[in-house]
Amino acid sequence: MCLLVIVLTGEANAQTSKPTWIWYPGDFEIWLSNEVQMKRTKRNALQPPWWRTYTHNSNVSFATHVDLKEEEDITIAVEGKYNVIIDGKYWQGDIHKILIPPGKHTIMMQVYNVITPPSIFVSGKTIASDTSWYCNTIRGSSPGQINDLWKVKADAWTFNNQEQAPSKFRLQTKEESPVNIERKPGSVLVDFGKETFGFVRLNELKGSGTIDLYYGESPEEALSIDSCETLDHLVIKDTSTSVFVVNHSRAFRYVNIQYSGNIKFKDVDMLYEYLPVSYRGSFKSSDDELNRIWNTSAYTLHLSTREFFLDGIKRDRWIWSGDANQSYLMNYYLFFDDPVVKRTIWAVRGSDPVETHINTILDYSFYWFMSIYDYYLYTGDEELIRKIYPRMVTLMEFCLKRRNSNSMVEGLPGDWVFLDWAPISKEGELSAIQILFCRGLESMALCASLMNDTKKSIEYTALAKELKEKIMSVFWDKNQNAFIHNRKNGLTEKDVTRYANMFALMFNYLDSAKTESVKTNVLMNDHVLKITTPYMRFYELEALCAIGQQDYVMKEMKDYWGGMLREGATSFWELYDPNEKGTKKYAMYGRPFGKSLCHAWGASPIYLLGKYFLGVKPLKPGYAEYLVEPNLGGLEWMEGKVPTPDGDIYVAMNKKQISVSGVAGNGTLRFKSKKKPSSNDGNLKKISEDTYQLTIVPGKKYVVRYFN
Amino acid sequence: MCLLVIVLTGEANAQTSKPTWIWYPGDFEIWLSNEVQMKRTKRNALQPPWWRTYTHNSNVSFATHVDLKEEEDITIAVEGKYNVIIDGKYWQGDIHKILIPPGKHTIMMQVYNVITPPSIFVSGKTIASDTSWYCNTIRGSSPGQINDLWKVKADAWTFNNQEQAPSKFRLQTKEESPVNIERKPGSVLVDFGKETFGFVRLNELKGSGTIDLYYGESPEEALSIDSCETLDHLVIKDTSTSVFVVNHSRAFRYVNIQYSGNIKFKDVDMLYEYLPVSYRGSFKSSDDELNRIWNTSAYTLHLSTREFFLDGIKRDRWIWSGDANQSYLMNYYLFFDDPVVKRTIWAVRGSDPVETHINTILDYSFYWFMSIYDYYLYTGDEELIRKIYPRMVTLMEFCLKRRNSNSMVEGLPGDWVFLDWAPISKEGELSAIQILFCRGLESMALCASLMNDTKKSIEYTALAKELKEKIMSVFWDKNQNAFIHNRKNGLTEKDVTRYANMFALMFNYLDSAKTESVKTNVLMNDHVLKITTPYMRFYELEALCAIGQQDYVMKEMKDYWGGMLREGATSFWELYDPNEKGTKKYAMYGRPFGKSLCHAWGASPIYLLGKYFLGVKPLKPGYAEYLVEPNLGGLEWMEGKVPTPDGDIYVAMNKKQISVSGVAGNGTLRFKSKKKPSSNDGNLKKISEDTYQLTIVPGKKYVVRYFN
Repeated sequence: MCLLVIVLTGEANAQTSKPTWIWYPGDFEIWLSNEVQMKRTKRNALQPPWWRTYTHNSNVSFATHVDLKEEEDITIAVEGKYNVIIDGKYWQGDIHKILIPPGKHTIMMQVYNVITPPSIFVSGKTIASDTSWYCNTIRGSSPGQINDLWKVKADAWTFNNQEQAPSKFRLQTKEESPVNIERKPGSVLVDFGKETFGFVRLNELKGSGTIDLYYGESPEEALSIDSCETLDHLVIKDTSTSVFVVNHSRAFRYVNIQYSGNIKFKDVDMLYEYLPVSYRGSFKSSDDELNRIWNTSAYTLHLSTREFFLDGIKRDRWIWSGDANQSYLMNYYLFFDDPVVKRTIWAVRGSDPVETHINTILDYSFYWFMSIYDYYLYTGDEELIRKIYPRMVTLMEFCLKRRNSNSMVEGLPGDWVFLDWAPISKEGELSAIQILFCRGLESMALCASLMNDTKKSIEYTALAKELKEKIMSVFWDKNQNAFIHNRKNGLTEKDVTRYANMFALMFNYLDSAKTESVKTNVLMNDHVLKITTPYMRFYELEALCAIGQQDYVMKEMKDYWGGMLREGATSFWELYDPNEKGTKKYAMYGRPFGKSLCHAWGASPIYLLGKYFLGVKPLKPGYAEYLVEPNLGGLEWMEGKVPTPDGDIYVAMNKKQISVSGVAGNGTLRFKSKKKPSSNDGNLKKISEDTYQLTIVPGKKYVVRYFN
Repeated sequence: MCLLVIVLTGEANAQTSKPTWIWYPGDFEIWLSNEVQMKRTKRNALQPPWWRTYTHNSNVSFATHVDLKEEEDITIAVEGKYNVIIDGKYWQGDIHKILIPPGKHTIMMQVYNVITPPSIFVSGKTIASDTSWYCNTIRGSSPGQINDLWKVKADAWTFNNQEQAPSKFRLQTKEESPVNIERKPGSVLVDFGKETFGFVRLNELKGSGTIDLYYGESPEEALSIDSCETLDHLVIKDTSTSVFVVNHSRAFRYVNIQYSGNIKFKDVDMLYEYLPVSYRGSFKSSDDELNRIWNTSAYTLHLSTREFFLDGIKRDRWIWSGDANQSYLMNYYLFFDDPVVKRTIWAVRGSDPVETHINTILDYSFYWFMSIYDYYLYTGDEELIRKIYPRMVTLMEFCLKRRNSNSMVEGLPGDWVFLDWAPISKEGELSAIQILFCRGLESMALCASLMNDTKKSIEYTALAKELKEKIMSVFWDKNQNAFIHNRKNGLTEKDVTRYANMFALMFNYLDSAKTESVKTNVLMNDHVLKITTPYMRFYELEALCAIGQQDYVMKEMKDYWGGMLREGATSFWELYDPNEKGTKKYAMYGRPFGKSLCHAWGASPIYLLGKYFLGVKPLKPGYAEYLVEPNLGGLEWMEGKVPTPDGDIYVAMNKKQISVSGVAGNGTLRFKSKKKPSSNDGNLKKISEDTYQLTIVPGKKYVVRYFN
């Protein structure tokens, strides 16, 4: 018996890796992003993205070398038309199951599919399609050889069964019931109790007629037939079904269903549609409202974490690089779901040639470079950079080509200079944009160096250094001791805005004197134009946290996000102005319900509380080194977890005690104490007047007593 | 009554242009080329092109401005999902028929379609989709405005009815019957009497079983079940049908049909599949064999003139730029069908980014540049250049980037240096390749100038000049008085081949002394490696004609093409070697029936006879100026027509008399006469010792008596 078990294990182990569906890197993501983005409607009208979209490669070759001790049957599943070339010979006959003779062989497949990404699943006793396979869209003239043209390794995700072809990927669904249904003749108004996303279902639907569904994030929107942002018109003929599912998934809390003819249905519920992710990060504190802010942020982020990170789930089902960049960072403190970050990074980039900035927005290209290095820093996964590096280079080439004679970037025809929704100038050379550009160059330099592309690493480093010097000399106003906003036609303006100042501070571009003046003259200065979007508040509050203003940020969070909760928010909004009352608060873009009431960038407390209150951040890729620097920010106590590739870091703090347990990697707890602290384990080290450090050894739990 | 008629005419005329299906330039051709090229099989196996293929743009916007005197209904047909945006507002409700109010409006449509090219057909009283519409794949952020990003005008062909959507395009078919059927138990061998292309049909097919079709260009091939190049395996279940059509079209003369089970069918015929074109060019002479050569050439060219110009119709259903370049030139002397030239030029180029040479072949990129200028020269149609110029620039950028430190091109990894099937070196800097490169640069300079791109025109002109000087100094061997073949690692070899010499001569790169030495030392020198492919014989014979060797070329034509006819050819071959006897003559590429017996490049007599015997060629674009310089090449008499955009030029000649009638444009008849000639009309002008000229006025017929 024992022997038999060993033999079986032996056989299973003989397969060097598990087979999985593979494709050319980026293809699955580009295809899926088209599927998703083409779901956006402007009420009745299709609304495709207004930037250049891309298609997956329709003609892809895959190849591998094998060395078989004995002959082996492989079974082949493919999405597309295909051939199989064994040792340079086109296989004749059945290409679903092939007997490979013993010895060394080259297996190659050419797959053509315009509709969905060419992808393959090959499975034998030892042979398995996986990310060690090469793939190729260029081809060479020698179909038998894996030559220099085969530089790219295939990509995969979790499609590990033959039946689970990539094009079949769908989000999961589960039933959810409304909390209230108001019935009137010919109409019902359904309330699901909170913002949600999915397919409305009509149970026991019978008859013929029309059914019109008007969705709303507010009851006012659902009841506004002429102005609600999304709707469905259905024509029903002689139907009698136990469950009728509307074929579009929508974001809403309320749905106003109007029906005519002899239509009857018993009740209404929905299939909630979601990406299954784990809530690994957590946060609890002595402040109940803050806890609700964290929970609502987490729900907001989950609703917008889907095939990709979306921003506004009701109206805007496109993928925006700048918005997504914040979702990535929040995700590292909540789900730590790598795949959705990678999918989104591929999707916004698309493929070559680069003809416009990502989403047409100048700044959004730069966030994209940063987001890739961030991904590496948080996850330690170099693989994404290896695969996407060629597209990083071509996007940066595009950006560099568009510099002006001062080697700076400004909006050219076709570019959208976004920066923020705010009454600020977008003309000429914006200081904030140059700083983002500089940070993009620095990210490229780091990635080039990781890829051993020394030439480019040196080039990008030099470009970044030169640009940083120019930024300081052009935009730092020595009288105002702050960065001014922009320079137009060679003339610097006097206006100071927060943007460049907070970015420079966050990116460590400032010495301590300049840091202090930015803090005093800009960030804490009420006379400087205030930021009103949660989008830019993300960076503003981060900058404030970075200089130790947790108490202030706590107050801001409670005011701003607490304010939305007090307005009845069940998810956080695209924009919040406490002065907008009644239905006015739903309006934006000149439309009465144009504002998104579930917007990813509204979820930033997740990030701020994890990184700057629990105080956990990676110092080296994948948390190989990390810092825990908790800060109560005025709370009585707090506790929570921050996910990492190797498990969760636990932090708890009250006014007397800090508890920490770490994971793999070199962790450091850093905290202030007015008197000499003590701990249950480890060696406490004083590093300055009132600051102490403790090394966190994986698997141990430390309890530190400190003096506030 | 009369008034009524006028009113009706008025109404019809109100539509400024006829509606037609429109798409983004290149999209239809790229899509169709994928459809066509994916039909190639290696016996049972799919054989996609081994170069990078492209997909059409899947997300295209179309727009136009209108100014209506009165409201107008437009009907809209679209291939794809779409929206309609009128004056910046997404149209709600029915998007198939829209009432446009009077006044100025911007009509915009966004169309998404991954499967077939996004295309639209809009028709109203005055509004019509046509090539005046703008289109866009980049988008801007203002869906209502036709701004600077809308530089591209839509493309169209002849899909002028709403029902005739571009994706429905198919070649035409007609019934053809075999000349012989040999029946045996369980099999029949069918002979269609000549090379053909189409779908085999089995009439009154009944029963169940398998039917295997083995196609052959020779009976030996059809009977060689193991080695024939194309085949179909069919499984038939309980069928009883009056006509069963095999679902793949194939090229063949013979088909060997083997069947099993209780399959029965009454007889076999086929649907011949072809592009409807007119045989506008013609040629007849005193030499019957030559006439058969011309007729067989014409049929060969027609068989390979399809959705695109193919080379070998049996085996190779891919589109090759170098091969097609010859088909274009032949076409100008036979069908003068512009659309198939344009389709092929788009198809081989594909879109951006350029990652390999066209068809991976270095020389094939250069022929492509030349082919565009040739197209302009023959047709006078500047529109193609306007549309494809951006892709000319990006391909040339690719070529220029790949120059070596001597600013010459040689094969890099992934490049195929083809030049010819011949035992010649392909290594290092080939003189012929540099000459083709130089000619490509010259073509680019001309096109850039036409596009008013002065900067690039100057740049390309300078690059061409510099390269030409280098070619002369590096490759012209003053001892041998000829171009040597190549330079490798800085060392020039001594070998002289015909390639560079004949190209330089054809492109007028040589002064009269060098022309004379190339003629004597290379072209007429039997010790220089002979050219055996009809492909390179095309250029060789053209070069010989260009220096007046028509008598010699006539002999070569009769030997080579006459030789194939004597071997029973019904279409001309990929390669012909009179020494190969029996079935050996069918072998190529190491396969017994690998050779194509219907190969476009075999049809060159069409071109040679039209251009150098009838002697008609354009001097200015679209035959605005042209020359007729007939040469009997040893014939007793000849007559024929050469098509031009404005009609056919007629030429007849015997040993005493030349008859010519012209078309629009300034024509010149030039001929030699030992004594003073006379003519029925016009003024004869002596231009040198024994050469005379006559201006051809359109619509007149000239009869000139000359002295041989």
